[in-house]
Amino acid sequence: MSRLYDRVALIGLGLIASSMGHAMKREGLAGEIVGHARSAETRGVSLELGFVDRVCDTAAEAVAGADLVVLATPVGVMEAVAAEIGPHLAQGATLTDAGSVKQAVIAAVAPHVPEGVHFIPGHPLAGTEHSGPRAGFANLFVNRWWLFTPLPETDPAALSRLESLCKAMGANVERMDPAHHDLVLAVVSHTPHLIAYTMVGVADHLRRVSQSEVIKYSASGFRDFTRIAASDPVMWRDVFLTNKEATLDILGRFTEELFVLQRAIRMGDGEALHDYFTRTRAIRRGIIEAGQDTDAPDFGRSKIG
Amino acid sequence: MSRLYDRVALIGLGLIASSMGHAMKREGLAGEIVGHARSAETRGVSLELGFVDRVCDTAAEAVAGADLVVLATPVGVMEAVAAEIGPHLAQGATLTDAGSVKQAVIAAVAPHVPEGVHFIPGHPLAGTEHSGPRAGFANLFVNRWWLFTPLPETDPAALSRLESLCKAMGANVERMDPAHHDLVLAVVSHTPHLIAYTMVGVADHLRRVSQSEVIKYSASGFRDFTRIAASDPVMWRDVFLTNKEATLDILGRFTEELFVLQRAIRMGDGEALHDYFTRTRAIRRGIIEAGQDTDAPDFGRSKIG
Repeated sequence: MSRLYDRVALIGLGLIASSMGHAMKREGLAGEIVGHARSAETRGVSLELGFVDRVCDTAAEAVAGADLVVLATPVGVMEAVAAEIGPHLAQGATLTDAGSVKQAVIAAVAPHVPEGVHFIPGHPLAGTEHSGPRAGFANLFVNRWWLFTPLPETDPAALSRLESLCKAMGANVERMDPAHHDLVLAVVSHTPHLIAYTMVGVADHLRRVSQSEVIKYSASGFRDFTRIAASDPVMWRDVFLTNKEATLDILGRFTEELFVLQRAIRMGDGEALHDYFTRTRAIRRGIIEAGQDTDAPDFGRSKIG
Repeated sequence: MSRLYDRVALIGLGLIASSMGHAMKREGLAGEIVGHARSAETRGVSLELGFVDRVCDTAAEAVAGADLVVLATPVGVMEAVAAEIGPHLAQGATLTDAGSVKQAVIAAVAPHVPEGVHFIPGHPLAGTEHSGPRAGFANLFVNRWWLFTPLPETDPAALSRLESLCKAMGANVERMDPAHHDLVLAVVSHTPHLIAYTMVGVADHLRRVSQSEVIKYSASGFRDFTRIAASDPVMWRDVFLTNKEATLDILGRFTEELFVLQRAIRMGDGEALHDYFTRTRAIRRGIIEAGQDTDAPDFGRSKIG
C-alpha cells in the first residue's frame, strides 16, 4: 500500500489513535506520524511504543504542516481542542475525528475549522474494553465499520482519500446522516452500554450476594456485561452527555419493554415470554450471517483475542 | 479416570446432557449411558452422535437399573418427569438435575423421590447460546462451576461421588443453600438474560433504524446482548416462571438504578456518570483475576471458541 498522507497528526493517544498509528506504520500509509496527548507520560509511552514518530507538547504544534489531523480525544474536550488547533491547521488539510457521537461533535468542532480545511466527521466502530496508548494494536479496525457523516460542503476527493486510508487499515467504510448515526449508535451501542453499567452496578450494591460470588459465578451471562461495563469512563460519560436525546429515547422504549416482560413474569404468562425469546433469536442469526460474530459455542467459555 | 457409575440415565438430550455424555465417555466415567428424550428425532441423533449407548422411548424405561439419573430437561417439565420415573428408580440410586433454579425444582421433584434414592439438586453453570443434542461437547464443563444445593437429609457419600463425577468432567464444585443459589443466579444470570432479551427486542421493534443496520453495526456492544438473547426460549421461559421472586427483586433494583443514571443523563450530571462507570471497572478486574475470562482485547472482535 502506498503513502496516502505525508504527515498525520494524532490528537489524543488512546486506544483508537495508537491502533491507527500501528496500522498506518505497518501499511506504510503516512510519511510521518506526529502525536499529542495532554499527559507527558502518555506521550512518552507512545514514543517508546513507536506508533508515532514524534510527539509535541501542544496540539497546536502537532497539527502544524499535517495534511491529516485526527481528533481521538473524548468527545467532551473536542471543542476546546478544535479552538486551539483551528488557527494552526494547514490549508487543504483534512480534519477528522473518532467520536462516538456525531451531531454534538459537528456542533462543537465545525465553527473552529477555517476555510480551506476539510472537516469530515467520522466514527470507527471498533474498540476493546481497554484504553490508553498501550491498548492499541494494528488489527483493531480489520473487518470493522468506519462511519463517516460528511457535511453538505464536504469535498468528495478529500472524503475518498480518507476512506482509502480506513480501508487500507482493514475497515469497511460507510456514509451516514449525522442524526441517523446518533440514533443507530444509541440502539447498537450507547443504550446497551448504559444497561450493562447499570446491571454491574446493581450487582456491586447487593449486600446479600457477596461481590466475590458475583465474580466467581460471572460466566453465566453477567460476564459479558462486565466486559462492556469496563470501558473507558470518560469516553462513556461524554457519549451520554452528548447523545442525550437519542439515548433517552431508546432508554424509554427499553424500560417500557422491560415492564411488559416483568409483568409477564409476575403474571406467570409463559406464552408471552416464550414468544418474545423466540423472536430475539432471529436477530442473532442475522449477525452471524453478516460476519460480525462467529457461531462458535463460546458463550461462557474462555475467549482467545 | 476410573468408572464412577455403572449406568447413567440422561433424561432430556440437549446441550447439557449431550456434553455430559461426551465428557463421561471420553473419561470412562460410566459403564453405560442410557438416554431418553421426548422426540424420536432427538433420540436418533443422540444415538448417531454416540454420546449415549442406547436410548429408550420412555423416561421410566431409561432410569431402570441406573445408579445415576440426571434430569436435564427444561425446569417446567421436571415435575411430570419425576412423577413418571419415581416408581422406577433403583434403590440406592442418585437422582440429580441440571436446572437453573433450585427451590422450584426441589419443590417439584422431591415429593416424587422414593425412600432409598438420593436426590441431590445440582446446577452446572455452563452453556452456550446453542441448544439440542448436536450442541454438546466434552469440554463444556472445564473450569466451570457445578453447584449443588443438597437437602438436609442428603447422604454425604452420594454427594461426594456425584461431585467426583463433575470434577472428572473438568468442573469445579461448590455447595450452596437453595434460596441463596436462586438469588445469586438471579443476579449473575437470570436478570442479565432478561435485560439482553429486552434490548434485542427493542432493536427488533424500531422502525427508524432498520434491522439490517442493527445487525451490520452490532459489534459496538449490542452483539454480546444478542448472543445472550439467542439462548433456548423454553429453558429461559421456565427459569423466569420458576425463579420469579428473586428475578423480580433484582429487576426492581435494576430499574431503580437505571432511573438514577437516566436522570443523570437528562440533567447532564457528568460527575455522577463518571463515578458510576469508574466503580464498575473494578468488578471486571476481579473476574479476570478469578480466571473466569481473559484479558485479551477481544471486545468487538471475532472470537475463537
